[in-house]
Amino acid sequence: MHTINLNTSSRIEFLNITAEIRRIIIESGLKEGIAIAYVPHTTAGITINEAADPDVVSDINRKLSQLVPVEATYQHSEGNSDAHIKASLMGSSTQIIVIQGKPILGQWQGIFFCEFDGPRRRKVFVKTISD
Amino acid sequence: MHTINLNTSSRIEFLNITAEIRRIIIESGLKEGIAIAYVPHTTAGITINEAADPDVVSDINRKLSQLVPVEATYQHSEGNSDAHIKASLMGSSTQIIVIQGKPILGQWQGIFFCEFDGPRRRKVFVKTISD
Amino acid sequence: MHTINLNTSSRIEFLNITAEIRRIIIESGLKEGIAIAYVPHTTAGITINEAADPDVVSDINRKLSQLVPVEATYQHSEGNSDAHIKASLMGSSTQIIVIQGKPILGQWQGIFFCEFDGPRRRKVFVKTISD
Repeated sequence: MHTINLNTSSRIEFLNITAEIRRIIIESGLKEGIAIAYVPHTTAGITINEAADPDVVSDINRKLSQLVPVEATYQHSEGNSDAHIKASLMGSSTQIIVIQGKPILGQWQGIFFCEFDGPRRRKVFVKTISD
Repeated sequence: MHTINLNTSSRIEFLNITAEIRRIIIESGLKEGIAIAYVPHTTAGITINEAADPDVVSDINRKLSQLVPVEATYQHSEGNSDAHIKASLMGSSTQIIVIQGKPILGQWQGIFFCEFDGPRRRKVFVKTISD
Repeated sequence: MHTINLNTSSRIEFLNITAEIRRIIIESGLKEGIAIAYVPHTTAGITINEAADPDVVSDINRKLSQLVPVEATYQHSEGNSDAHIKASLMGSSTQIIVIQGKPILGQWQGIFFCEFDGPRRRKVFVKTISD
């Protein structure tokens, strides 16, 4: 298993981690299979979406904050229930198909770590599985 | 890896691709493991839900459009930010357990390609992984 | 494949199934790989989130019901369209990385079965995949 260490710099932020995941997959030597990227946190998630125009992930982030505002009636006393809810909406892991040693992403796709309660030190675990 | 080619016919549409995924799994010869269905697009997703009554996926689609309307204040200039956001809410991939050469779906479950910015030519990649 | 049998007791409820999934993984003998937890139902889902404070999953559940109310204009005639929609928002499966025979969860993470149309008898399938 490989670990990506991240330092986020805002409360909400999408970090493009495609290049690091690509490097891990290539260096792993996996030829055919899948890679799992897993976020071991409960106030952050992971998603695959457009990497070409950074406005796309800004729009995702802003819409999530409209749907799940930080200020609302929540029971959890730490003041970050919005972050937990967004984490479940995006999901804690994603999978990438690997063919001939390379991740098969669509032309416009990138893999984004979704920070919902930063800034914090964060990790993403990557595990390769052969077919 | 196997590729399903799709032509969607509306801007938003859920296409039942269960039969094609089932056929790919059976023809792959995989006996025990999982299959990954992966959407290489950023304005489409994939989800598993009820296939018996087509009103169910219509309801999912309509509710997503209420929560994430096409007309709203977005930064991304292509006019399809709603489609990108819905894609991340549904997710870009799903996994199916395979036992004795067959996908193990629940009685009412079907696998749906979620078009959010059609009509377009689309692809779904299917990769089988043995246990 | 291993099956977890559940009896839910309310219409909406998040059940912590971490201990059972951990036990299945350890008893499977899998050393390195992943485990897939799959929900074969269309009005229930699965998510990973904070297990320490039960208010967190209560907040997720309450927010989902605000975003997708049970009473609204739906086409599906069974009166549980909200449950189908929530199921697709949470997802039908999740994956856990297994290292040295043990699931690698974050410190605060637990795995939750998400009942959206109970009380019912439910199942979760768990399949282990070696790397």
